[in-house]
Amino acid sequence: MIGIGIIGYGYWGPNLARCATEAGGCRVVSIADQSPAARARASVRYGSVDVVEDWKTLVADPRVDAVIIATPTRIHFDLALAALKAGKHVLVEKPMAATSREASILIEEAEKRGLILMVDHTFVYTGAVQKIKELVVAGVIGDCYYYDSTRINLGLFQRDVNVIWDLAVHDLAILDFALGISPIAVSATGAGHIKGSPENMAHITFYLDGGATAHLNVNWLAPVKIRRTLIGGSRRMIVYDDVEPSEKVKVYDRGVDHDGDVENSEQREDVYRMLLNYRMGDVWTPQLPVKEALLSEIEHFVECIGQRMSPLTSGASGLRVVTMLEAASQSLRQRGHPVELTGMRQAS
Amino acid sequence: MIGIGIIGYGYWGPNLARCATEAGGCRVVSIADQSPAARARASVRYGSVDVVEDWKTLVADPRVDAVIIATPTRIHFDLALAALKAGKHVLVEKPMAATSREASILIEEAEKRGLILMVDHTFVYTGAVQKIKELVVAGVIGDCYYYDSTRINLGLFQRDVNVIWDLAVHDLAILDFALGISPIAVSATGAGHIKGSPENMAHITFYLDGGATAHLNVNWLAPVKIRRTLIGGSRRMIVYDDVEPSEKVKVYDRGVDHDGDVENSEQREDVYRMLLNYRMGDVWTPQLPVKEALLSEIEHFVECIGQRMSPLTSGASGLRVVTMLEAASQSLRQRGHPVELTGMRQAS
Amino acid sequence: MIGIGIIGYGYWGPNLARCATEAGGCRVVSIADQSPAARARASVRYGSVDVVEDWKTLVADPRVDAVIIATPTRIHFDLALAALKAGKHVLVEKPMAATSREASILIEEAEKRGLILMVDHTFVYTGAVQKIKELVVAGVIGDCYYYDSTRINLGLFQRDVNVIWDLAVHDLAILDFALGISPIAVSATGAGHIKGSPENMAHITFYLDGGATAHLNVNWLAPVKIRRTLIGGSRRMIVYDDVEPSEKVKVYDRGVDHDGDVENSEQREDVYRMLLNYRMGDVWTPQLPVKEALLSEIEHFVECIGQRMSPLTSGASGLRVVTMLEAASQSLRQRGHPVELTGMRQAS
Amino acid sequence: MIGIGIIGYGYWGPNLARCATEAGGCRVVSIADQSPAARARASVRYGSVDVVEDWKTLVADPRVDAVIIATPTRIHFDLALAALKAGKHVLVEKPMAATSREASILIEEAEKRGLILMVDHTFVYTGAVQKIKELVVAGVIGDCYYYDSTRINLGLFQRDVNVIWDLAVHDLAILDFALGISPIAVSATGAGHIKGSPENMAHITFYLDGGATAHLNVNWLAPVKIRRTLIGGSRRMIVYDDVEPSEKVKVYDRGVDHDGDVENSEQREDVYRMLLNYRMGDVWTPQLPVKEALLSEIEHFVECIGQRMSPLTSGASGLRVVTMLEAASQSLRQRGHPVELTGMRQAS
Repeated sequence: MIGIGIIGYGYWGPNLARCATEAGGCRVVSIADQSPAARARASVRYGSVDVVEDWKTLVADPRVDAVIIATPTRIHFDLALAALKAGKHVLVEKPMAATSREASILIEEAEKRGLILMVDHTFVYTGAVQKIKELVVAGVIGDCYYYDSTRINLGLFQRDVNVIWDLAVHDLAILDFALGISPIAVSATGAGHIKGSPENMAHITFYLDGGATAHLNVNWLAPVKIRRTLIGGSRRMIVYDDVEPSEKVKVYDRGVDHDGDVENSEQREDVYRMLLNYRMGDVWTPQLPVKEALLSEIEHFVECIGQRMSPLTSGASGLRVVTMLEAASQSLRQRGHPVELTGMRQAS
Repeated sequence: MIGIGIIGYGYWGPNLARCATEAGGCRVVSIADQSPAARARASVRYGSVDVVEDWKTLVADPRVDAVIIATPTRIHFDLALAALKAGKHVLVEKPMAATSREASILIEEAEKRGLILMVDHTFVYTGAVQKIKELVVAGVIGDCYYYDSTRINLGLFQRDVNVIWDLAVHDLAILDFALGISPIAVSATGAGHIKGSPENMAHITFYLDGGATAHLNVNWLAPVKIRRTLIGGSRRMIVYDDVEPSEKVKVYDRGVDHDGDVENSEQREDVYRMLLNYRMGDVWTPQLPVKEALLSEIEHFVECIGQRMSPLTSGASGLRVVTMLEAASQSLRQRGHPVELTGMRQAS
Repeated sequence: MIGIGIIGYGYWGPNLARCATEAGGCRVVSIADQSPAARARASVRYGSVDVVEDWKTLVADPRVDAVIIATPTRIHFDLALAALKAGKHVLVEKPMAATSREASILIEEAEKRGLILMVDHTFVYTGAVQKIKELVVAGVIGDCYYYDSTRINLGLFQRDVNVIWDLAVHDLAILDFALGISPIAVSATGAGHIKGSPENMAHITFYLDGGATAHLNVNWLAPVKIRRTLIGGSRRMIVYDDVEPSEKVKVYDRGVDHDGDVENSEQREDVYRMLLNYRMGDVWTPQLPVKEALLSEIEHFVECIGQRMSPLTSGASGLRVVTMLEAASQSLRQRGHPVELTGMRQAS
Repeated sequence: MIGIGIIGYGYWGPNLARCATEAGGCRVVSIADQSPAARARASVRYGSVDVVEDWKTLVADPRVDAVIIATPTRIHFDLALAALKAGKHVLVEKPMAATSREASILIEEAEKRGLILMVDHTFVYTGAVQKIKELVVAGVIGDCYYYDSTRINLGLFQRDVNVIWDLAVHDLAILDFALGISPIAVSATGAGHIKGSPENMAHITFYLDGGATAHLNVNWLAPVKIRRTLIGGSRRMIVYDDVEPSEKVKVYDRGVDHDGDVENSEQREDVYRMLLNYRMGDVWTPQLPVKEALLSEIEHFVECIGQRMSPLTSGASGLRVVTMLEAASQSLRQRGHPVELTGMRQAS
């Protein structure tokens, strides 16, 4: 039975605590939060769990085998490093760290000590993303042409990170897991509309290995909530709409078959003639499992600890995502000037 | 009664012919098309109209007072210039010309001869875009923060222009008309997935005068048809969904009011506290007139000829749009490298 | 080449004329309408067609082999009977006649003379309804449990018929064709909200042979347009949404498998336990052909004339539909009191 | 501080317990359930609450001032009566009782003892239904023409009640509260498709005082979840879609204005002419409060106890709803034969 300690009981912490309670193979033994109000909420909810002010108390607690960190990004590094140094396994909130350098140090520390280091890329554990990966791996979409995501709403503005670090991080985690392709350059644009706040809107294009592209549209200041990703392939295309209550993933047997007409056609009306080569086939909506992603993720963390297995969302994936976030932010500051990304992934 | 000649009876020409027939104050006297099949279709449909092979015959026809040009973009310039030189008013398909230089020459020629030169930016004449302009001018949205448009479908690939010149042109015409703001730089990315075809997918960010941005997502290779534009403002936000059969324009009384909290708040949980400053008000869907846009446009053309009035979509607006298309294409070839746009608009 | 005469050039007539012009194997030779304005519209549009005031002129025209009747329902019988007696094939607008007695006489007359008598149940010729029939026949849905249709909008109030005769007629034609099952009783309720108008809202339940039911919700005074039919089966269920631009027919692999639990379960919480027997499978959206239904229908009419073949929507189907309309209207007047329907269908 | 006891911790009980914990002015002191599993769940969740097997223990507990009953309908009466006789206030799950006679006895008992008797018609406490009532009362929709509701999904089949008692009860509670109109007759049809189960599908029309009608379409065996109600009025119409995450209530300024044309028009083309009298105005989507309905309801219960105030969903409303359910079930067994409902409401 793995003993779990949770640092941070603000917005996301209560969800982690609930899932860690429900998950098999582990139990929550301690929760730390600086805020008295947060501690009061935790105490009422979990009568039998130690609720402490200082995270150092939690990290020092010998009953704690693994630490889950759900604090603002800027202190992920300090907490995770301390926990690893105390011999604890770590599951850290996304984004893994504030810089790729920090992420690298954490990976090294975990490896040195033989500890599990995992990043909470929750979407990777959803039935939808698991299904998309399955479809991609099975060749259902063929060659991947593009990933085009819109992730916008009237959201919580954050102070210490811009919208890229808050919302685009989800897409980068999905890309890293489901498509397993390596970015080679990025161009990002964006703007901040609220004085004193970081950028609340950004559009980011990643040029991927092999000619594909990924585009992310993220926005904290949109009137409607949209969570929709298009994945275009040579054989089929996927629409993943996370706002849909049940039909989240649709597979379209649509595309254009180019049997030479494009280049050879000399007719003046070729544009209409070409219509004949468009493929407009059926749509298929696979039924998805309904298990809560966060619960699956915690159970995976516990299993990885037990089996000394590398998690699906390991420190290495966390580092790749942070590296992409850094490059995107750099391009954003230069109005879309492309930034190279090299050597990010040795092997997928 | 203005005599109208139409050059090009392929994809769009029949719509122009139909509307020019229905519109008051004008009549179609001649249609020219190189293709025998197109001429046959025109003859069956319009028994009493001259249907000719050579556009020069049409331009030389003394009954023709005004020429409508609905041919591939690459020959817009030659045809329009010849028509103007023959003393005809001209309504030319979008985009106005293949280069800004060509567009400038046409404007000059029309001005010199006192002829009306108008560009078929059809969307400007829709009830939806007219309503949006009305809302913007009336201050309903406040300061414009952003324009964010998705215009994608499984579309007709074109050979001589990329997707920007085919689809983004609509948004640029809407931007030019409804927001009346001047771009100062552009960053565009994109890709071509079909060998031998131009780019079929692009994402374009325009940095606008005054801090606003405009983003266009255009794609010929999408599994679903989306035509949705978000316009974010300091007071309200608009969602314009052109695929909706009746509720195309919605005005959201939503946003974030920043009364200093963002900067001053020192609380650790400020992110939740700030929620209090979010404004989530009513939504209002104005009823739109149902008149066909193209018919309104043709009637406007005829009225401008009669009154020697500058059209809403004059040659000058056509030039501004072509200039933006050129700059976007240039940035696209450089993977998002920003391209400056200066002195585009003297007065809105 | 079948010569076609069209009586009535009001709302639907122009569509019939257009499709009869496009269809192979026939040509429109005459159009009759009492209204000078309608005749003017027809003349402008069809220069080479005789446009006459008196339908008797059209029926007497020896070039007319077949007559299409698109007039108010109350005169269908007189016109169709006169046309048949003049030896013309007849395609009559829905509903076929104002009473089942009239419909029977027309069938008899056509049979006696060996003429084709067909009813314009347009929906039967749509790709969607053809696909639904195909799915039903192939056993994809299993036993049919129910047909539940909502067909409402802010529609044209009619003077001579209530909403059942205007809107429910479509569903009855679809039911008759696609499910091929026989009603045994009907209960209908409804109301008229506009003084001097017939009922503009009705809800009709048909009890069908074999235990299935069909329910129709029709309304001329609804704020939104809905055209959605659910077909529940023992194996799968269909949702047919005619307002959807492209994904009109969806097949749901959903239902409940009753392996005895319902009856035997003695647990107090059986209601939750039973959840295990629910089937929530994939959704499949077949691509549908895009050919215009009315054009297919006219071509079918012409083919039936040429081959002396019984049409899919023969006089007999028209009679069955009118019989159901009569019974529903009778029940409606009695506030839902059930009305028996017997011997409606000898053989499907 | 009102002491609350909750009988039944199956499907709905946990929600009641959670809200009674969060609500001000009361605290949960005891939970009773026969099932050991349910008791175990309650104990884990509420460490400090007495969890007992026998409801009689709970009712006898002197700390319990008010009892909330969340058990199968068939035992509502016994439990509620016992609680009232023990001097406890009662909040009982919908439907209030299995028969109108039972409901009447409960009302009498509560009145005799001066106790609050309230029915859990949860929808009445939603922001959406509160807004609808507000709009109706303010005359925004004018005279009510109809209420037309579709409430279907692939739902939990129940053993002891048919779908009317499970789903239509919601609409009847809304009707009773928001429209405050009295039914005079009902016609209901339906079917059971699963052997051994009660009817899982029903269509019910209530004829209301003053000429309006209410129709309810309820179904446990539908492939998709629909929760949509149309309310047609002489001035405006409402669409209430409870599946919509945020825009649940829309007010349509649409209808038909009948200025005598319908009766007097003698033109043959009156049907098109009448189009001019259709009103197609704006749509307005009021923002709704987001407070959880059940929490508001519990707080209302507590307030009613404190103030000896009659609840919005009093025993009397529960009785009216049960009476309508009984009449609908009676008509259902007779294939739609209308059943009279008289003297149901003395004063709204």
